[in-house]
Amino acid sequence: MRIILVGYGVVGQSLTRLFISRKAELAKNYGFRPRVVAVADRGGVAVNPKGLDLERILQVKAEKHTVAADTVYGHPNMRVLDVIESVEAEALVEASPTNVKDGEPALSHIKSAFKAGKHVVTSNKGPLALALPVLTELAEHNKVYFRFSGSVGAGTPILEFAKKCLYGERIVSIRGVLNGTTNYILTEMAEKHVAFNEALEKAKKLGYAEADPSMDIDGIDTACKIVILANWAMGKKVTLKDVQIKGIRNVTIKDIEDAAKNNCLVKLVGSANGKLEVKPENVPKESPLAVSGTLNAVTFTSEFAGEQTIIGRGAGGVETASAILRDLLDIKQKLAAKVWLEI
Amino acid sequence: MRIILVGYGVVGQSLTRLFISRKAELAKNYGFRPRVVAVADRGGVAVNPKGLDLERILQVKAEKHTVAADTVYGHPNMRVLDVIESVEAEALVEASPTNVKDGEPALSHIKSAFKAGKHVVTSNKGPLALALPVLTELAEHNKVYFRFSGSVGAGTPILEFAKKCLYGERIVSIRGVLNGTTNYILTEMAEKHVAFNEALEKAKKLGYAEADPSMDIDGIDTACKIVILANWAMGKKVTLKDVQIKGIRNVTIKDIEDAAKNNCLVKLVGSANGKLEVKPENVPKESPLAVSGTLNAVTFTSEFAGEQTIIGRGAGGVETASAILRDLLDIKQKLAAKVWLEI
Repeated sequence: MRIILVGYGVVGQSLTRLFISRKAELAKNYGFRPRVVAVADRGGVAVNPKGLDLERILQVKAEKHTVAADTVYGHPNMRVLDVIESVEAEALVEASPTNVKDGEPALSHIKSAFKAGKHVVTSNKGPLALALPVLTELAEHNKVYFRFSGSVGAGTPILEFAKKCLYGERIVSIRGVLNGTTNYILTEMAEKHVAFNEALEKAKKLGYAEADPSMDIDGIDTACKIVILANWAMGKKVTLKDVQIKGIRNVTIKDIEDAAKNNCLVKLVGSANGKLEVKPENVPKESPLAVSGTLNAVTFTSEFAGEQTIIGRGAGGVETASAILRDLLDIKQKLAAKVWLEI
Repeated sequence: MRIILVGYGVVGQSLTRLFISRKAELAKNYGFRPRVVAVADRGGVAVNPKGLDLERILQVKAEKHTVAADTVYGHPNMRVLDVIESVEAEALVEASPTNVKDGEPALSHIKSAFKAGKHVVTSNKGPLALALPVLTELAEHNKVYFRFSGSVGAGTPILEFAKKCLYGERIVSIRGVLNGTTNYILTEMAEKHVAFNEALEKAKKLGYAEADPSMDIDGIDTACKIVILANWAMGKKVTLKDVQIKGIRNVTIKDIEDAAKNNCLVKLVGSANGKLEVKPENVPKESPLAVSGTLNAVTFTSEFAGEQTIIGRGAGGVETASAILRDLLDIKQKLAAKVWLEI
């Protein structure tokens, strides 16, 4: 499979490392032979229609901070959209940074790939949260596959669970602790009895929170994920503007102590049933949703099988890369079945 | 799909009720039209090659305690094996009671169905725990599907999770709280500070423990499930005799109090990595495995995606029936794809 990889941060680099380290086994067990024909980052692109040497690209990135610095295959001035449109490939992996304002440039990358007949795998929540109903339709119209397992729960297969494990069930409600940063802060406040700001500073120091933590603590990241889940698992046609959002900025130690008196923990919960909502809630300590630290947890309620919860780490470059790889394998498997059908 | 249903207790009856209540929707959404051509219980069988009237069968069962009492279709003396061999059907659903001594009569039912070219769905742990490697081989040899989602976790799709959600991953270890009865007893001991026997009596009163509770409290049920998981998710060829088993009979209040001092709970944990083992273990309170009451929880550790836990109710007739239905839909879907391939 020929792949164009856009975005070469932690996730993109982890993915190419997985391609290198699992090469023999992926070919043997899944007949999967990824050939990365282009890599794009902020500095430009590297293109080789025969497949880039991934060890070399990783080294160029480490030394020169952009793949465009490759002396043979680097193109500092080539437009990413031109690469997506003109370089022959079966799939685009979109792993550029999330932007929830207008979803760009990822949104254009994805649309352009669909129009060029390329399958798309992404971990980028921006375009998904803003335009998932439209993108799903566009993928169907162009008869290509569109997968985004890594966008919710990183390596934890939350989307796959909803679709593949509950086949035959109708999911009627979703409730989740979907953001590791806020969960770390709330856990720290509860266990160490420190105020929000102090816990936030500690999270920043440990690398759990970004310099501008708004995406996480104001609930936007959680809202993006609940939008993705509602579209994927419940068939709702919703976007970020349909979510009522309240973050954790105003959660006080008193709120947390009051919750404790009722044997509860305060968690930032995203939920989808009748409406979509993100807000701090009191969750009983023995509830499967009462996970601690940076863990994520999602409870699906389905019509006949009842309530099920899936718990795992919700972040991490390698984990997200492993989700992207699972998506690529899924597409590979689907394409193989299709070839059989067409013979 | 023509179905022979063997075993007409809570699970079997729940399944026929699902067939009735979901009839229109199953046909519309999945093209699935179950036709139950035979039902067997301890008292004999009811057979109608055109499909039994399920409302009528449920009523006969309720009033006369055996389907064989049906005045038109009942056969008190017909052998179940003869029905499986001679009545035309696509699938056998084996839902007779679990027997871990020799797996019978379910083991013979399943083998006989395979030889007759019938797909099998079962929730019966006996034959699985004793002979899963052989049964898997026999199903492959006869080119039929063999599914048993309801045997672990009832309605919670634990087996599906391992196979479908972690596609592309190698599962290196499994740890689970897999028995609701023992978990209820241990939770009760910890929360109410009562001795094992007292908690057991309460479990019996509430219907969580059977009159002979040995299967549960001596760890055999958990061992069966860990055998099924190790075969299914890790490709191990193991049976019940490969598991080192220690139940919860000798767990004392002191054990539980000592665990609490270390912020742990005592749980009956089944595990598979190098070896297969069932024993009471100290589980940290904030571990996703530290579920309370009758909940089940399983943690899968996979090579690249890390640790994931799935939590849900591990028992219940309707839940188990919903797992059997999911398995039937899975087979139906696979058969449909196969027909396409053969055209």
